[in-house]
Amino acid sequence: MIERNYKPNRCGKVFLAGAGPGDPELLTVRAMRVLASADFVLHDALVSAEILAMASPHAVLEDVGKRCGERAMRQEQIHARMIELARAGFSVVRLQGGDPMIFGRTGEEIAALVHANVAWEIVPGITASSAAAAAAGISLTNRRDAGQLTFLAGHRASDAAAVEIPAVPAGGATVAIYMPSGSYAEIAQNFLKRGWRRETPCVIVSEASTPHQRVVKSTIGSLGECERLPAPAILIVGETARLSFAVSPQNEIKTEVREIITSAP
Amino acid sequence: MIERNYKPNRCGKVFLAGAGPGDPELLTVRAMRVLASADFVLHDALVSAEILAMASPHAVLEDVGKRCGERAMRQEQIHARMIELARAGFSVVRLQGGDPMIFGRTGEEIAALVHANVAWEIVPGITASSAAAAAAGISLTNRRDAGQLTFLAGHRASDAAAVEIPAVPAGGATVAIYMPSGSYAEIAQNFLKRGWRRETPCVIVSEASTPHQRVVKSTIGSLGECERLPAPAILIVGETARLSFAVSPQNEIKTEVREIITSAP
Repeated sequence: MIERNYKPNRCGKVFLAGAGPGDPELLTVRAMRVLASADFVLHDALVSAEILAMASPHAVLEDVGKRCGERAMRQEQIHARMIELARAGFSVVRLQGGDPMIFGRTGEEIAALVHANVAWEIVPGITASSAAAAAAGISLTNRRDAGQLTFLAGHRASDAAAVEIPAVPAGGATVAIYMPSGSYAEIAQNFLKRGWRRETPCVIVSEASTPHQRVVKSTIGSLGECERLPAPAILIVGETARLSFAVSPQNEIKTEVREIITSAP
Repeated sequence: MIERNYKPNRCGKVFLAGAGPGDPELLTVRAMRVLASADFVLHDALVSAEILAMASPHAVLEDVGKRCGERAMRQEQIHARMIELARAGFSVVRLQGGDPMIFGRTGEEIAALVHANVAWEIVPGITASSAAAAAAGISLTNRRDAGQLTFLAGHRASDAAAVEIPAVPAGGATVAIYMPSGSYAEIAQNFLKRGWRRETPCVIVSEASTPHQRVVKSTIGSLGECERLPAPAILIVGETARLSFAVSPQNEIKTEVREIITSAP
């Protein structure tokens, strides 16, 4: 079923686009343009009204996201809908939070579109951990003690213990956990089991880049005492978090920064 | 020495901004805005003329980048220049390719600005591996066999053998190597030593998101037979690269895709 009452005289196309971390200014220029000329926007539940307002006033907005763990639409239904609309000649934006290639369903969506011989294009987005690092005022790598960077999805695993924390390489590493599940104490235990030091600094950033942004600074050893911050949250662990200065006098988003570091063991 | 002949009547600020992977449309809206109102832009050598043209016509552009391994300015000189300009009341954009928090010098720059009590803000950018994955038509993670994602910098290490390839976790992983150094054969050996299978697919993407973009599909076992692609290049290794379809009929950038997979051992 196509709800629009005209048949566009062009080939349809699906844009698999990233909505970024929350701030509408963190969309790419390209994402802004494809939204502005979209006929249909199939978006996740997390995409804000402010970002959806950037879509063409003529665009039909369809929420295909997950709520309370249940999807409004199954993934196969999303595929069928994208294909149906593109075949009818519409410009379709499939809009996911962050970067569609990091912890999204983009791989499956590309496979479905290729199988259906529908034109598509990926429009990258700013991933949540970049916005979290910007909020905390830290880099994600550095030459001295963070030579690599690993992204993990906390919410994928049924229990926190199943999240596979990497061992610390000789050149050091930063680990960013998206949507950390389980208790912070359990997560800290997982890091310790993999050989990370208790004094390793970390930051938890909640709702990065939005007016509700909050940053808590801690260490692996003190992480268990931090209160749980509202989702979406990112936990960044590693030496780069040591110099966290989310206190620049003129940052436009006022950020509450708390520091929770108990006495070293 | 300040080359501008007026004294702005406001507080200076430094924007540590990402220029993205190359395509000017992959800047964020925020990066575009801070560039458009900058008094000074201190940019890396890799930032294209097309992107620099987005700066205010009144902005002074200063190339502080590295050429032939030698920096036009030492890092400490870049710090001093940013601080001097911000203290004089100017709006300064420190523009690095990609995301300034991933394999940039942003941690050191923040520390210098905080020490000097100068206002600053991080403006995230699209990192090169996202543009590379978009070019190759792949996701960087997936639920089935790529539960985590690691970024490594190939050019940091003096020899390729020193690049610390992570072991494959039970949930699978994707590894993206920025600026792979050494021969592709050596890199392949490093993956094999860490337990990766010879049949694991990979893609090399050169000059992602630019008109010169090239994609080569291969496997770890065949990587050594691939010709070296021009920098900047990204090597993405992992099961997500299996479904690489950089062949969408209407992608606007025409991409040469070659497939180099020799018979399995």
